[in-house]
Amino acid sequence: MSSYLKATAVDRADDGTYVVELDPGWAIAGNPHGGYLMAVVSKAAVDAADSPHALAVSAHFLRPPHGGPAEVRVEVVKRGRTASTVRATLWQDDKARLDTLITTGRLPQGAPSYSARPMPDLLSPEECRARQETGATIELADHVDVRIDPRTSLSNGDGTPLIRGWMAFRDGTDVDVEALLLAVDIAPPTVAHLGYRGWAPTVELSCLLRGAPAPGWLAFEAKATQVNGAWFDEESSVWDATGRLVAQSRQLALVSAPSR
Amino acid sequence: MSSYLKATAVDRADDGTYVVELDPGWAIAGNPHGGYLMAVVSKAAVDAADSPHALAVSAHFLRPPHGGPAEVRVEVVKRGRTASTVRATLWQDDKARLDTLITTGRLPQGAPSYSARPMPDLLSPEECRARQETGATIELADHVDVRIDPRTSLSNGDGTPLIRGWMAFRDGTDVDVEALLLAVDIAPPTVAHLGYRGWAPTVELSCLLRGAPAPGWLAFEAKATQVNGAWFDEESSVWDATGRLVAQSRQLALVSAPSR
Repeated sequence: MSSYLKATAVDRADDGTYVVELDPGWAIAGNPHGGYLMAVVSKAAVDAADSPHALAVSAHFLRPPHGGPAEVRVEVVKRGRTASTVRATLWQDDKARLDTLITTGRLPQGAPSYSARPMPDLLSPEECRARQETGATIELADHVDVRIDPRTSLSNGDGTPLIRGWMAFRDGTDVDVEALLLAVDIAPPTVAHLGYRGWAPTVELSCLLRGAPAPGWLAFEAKATQVNGAWFDEESSVWDATGRLVAQSRQLALVSAPSR
Repeated sequence: MSSYLKATAVDRADDGTYVVELDPGWAIAGNPHGGYLMAVVSKAAVDAADSPHALAVSAHFLRPPHGGPAEVRVEVVKRGRTASTVRATLWQDDKARLDTLITTGRLPQGAPSYSARPMPDLLSPEECRARQETGATIELADHVDVRIDPRTSLSNGDGTPLIRGWMAFRDGTDVDVEALLLAVDIAPPTVAHLGYRGWAPTVELSCLLRGAPAPGWLAFEAKATQVNGAWFDEESSVWDATGRLVAQSRQLALVSAPSR
């Protein structure tokens, strides 16, 4: 079975509860990846709402969970023809870990009638290099192939907090809508370009899903707009292999102390 | 008393409930303004968390409320030193109208250490014109002074879904943090530039607050990135009178049928 589908499987226990098994391999330095957690919670929400897709996911990170058993508690707040809304919360060891509101419905098919955000110029995945972090174990790298355009990597960067690259699953599993939640959070923290190294915990991330991705590589761009005190924002855009904009997100996160 | 402070007042009834009176004057064509509703709910959340400010507001719009009595039901999901998270839901006539997750804390003071989004070139408020809508009553205009830069107005536009302008309260009340939630949703729908006229209901809006605004006019810029089927996104940025970026948002909304 696909590593991705296994790690994100949700098992309906009753109307309000899904049992999940958080895979310790989908982590960075022991912390399950935030995008991975959003994908798990979103799969439970979509199932509870009986909707084909998530359209808008608002995730507030409360406490990091660990690998192992957990549950997603869901409450369908509204059922509608065009859109339904679900509150879905990840619980582990009697503590809420991640709280979300998720609006679900059917993603539009076909080409957008207006689009002002074309895929940026990127080197091919073959010309890019694997995501690397100094001093951190990236368990996730066994499952997700992340390639960074060297023109936006830390060593080549010009001090602009911008990182572009590609993402695919190592075992060849096609990306699905929930994989976009992984893609919007897959870049290393862009503020490393400003001297803020190390872990940059996400406090809140909101993501709009704009279309089901075609099979193949996802392209991503992440950039920070403002750092103020310990707080920074990071915006991500994701395009599928056909060049269509399929996800947009913005997160609020905390910088580590500057190392320079 | 200030019209704004009166319209957004929240009255704590018990640990989980705030009584509010939705002012029918803070509306467009009979529907209370979405930004106004977010400001009301956010004031209840900040009080419940015993935090100075909202930092990240995720709002999912379920059903439009009407002017009159309503209540905000709050649940403090997590209390933390740096950030707390509250779920706050606007109820009226036994129906949930607006559901939110709000992370609260203390906004940074002083100048950002990095900022890549300066206030755009705008004509002065005196050179701009009042927000106008064809065929819609804007009750809100009695309370909020909205000026649109004529270079981005519908009559002068070049077909780009971008609108810039200024916002202040008519009675001279200083803007506060919650007023930023009004400002990110104060522009007429930018997709009117693409031929989609009429009401464009917001389904989800997420906003990051980045600083407490200085007194004076707020500048805003709203723009749509992609229209796909009936769905479009709209991004807003807000700067205070000193030129500091104080709010960033993105919403998912529905277009009306094109009129052209």
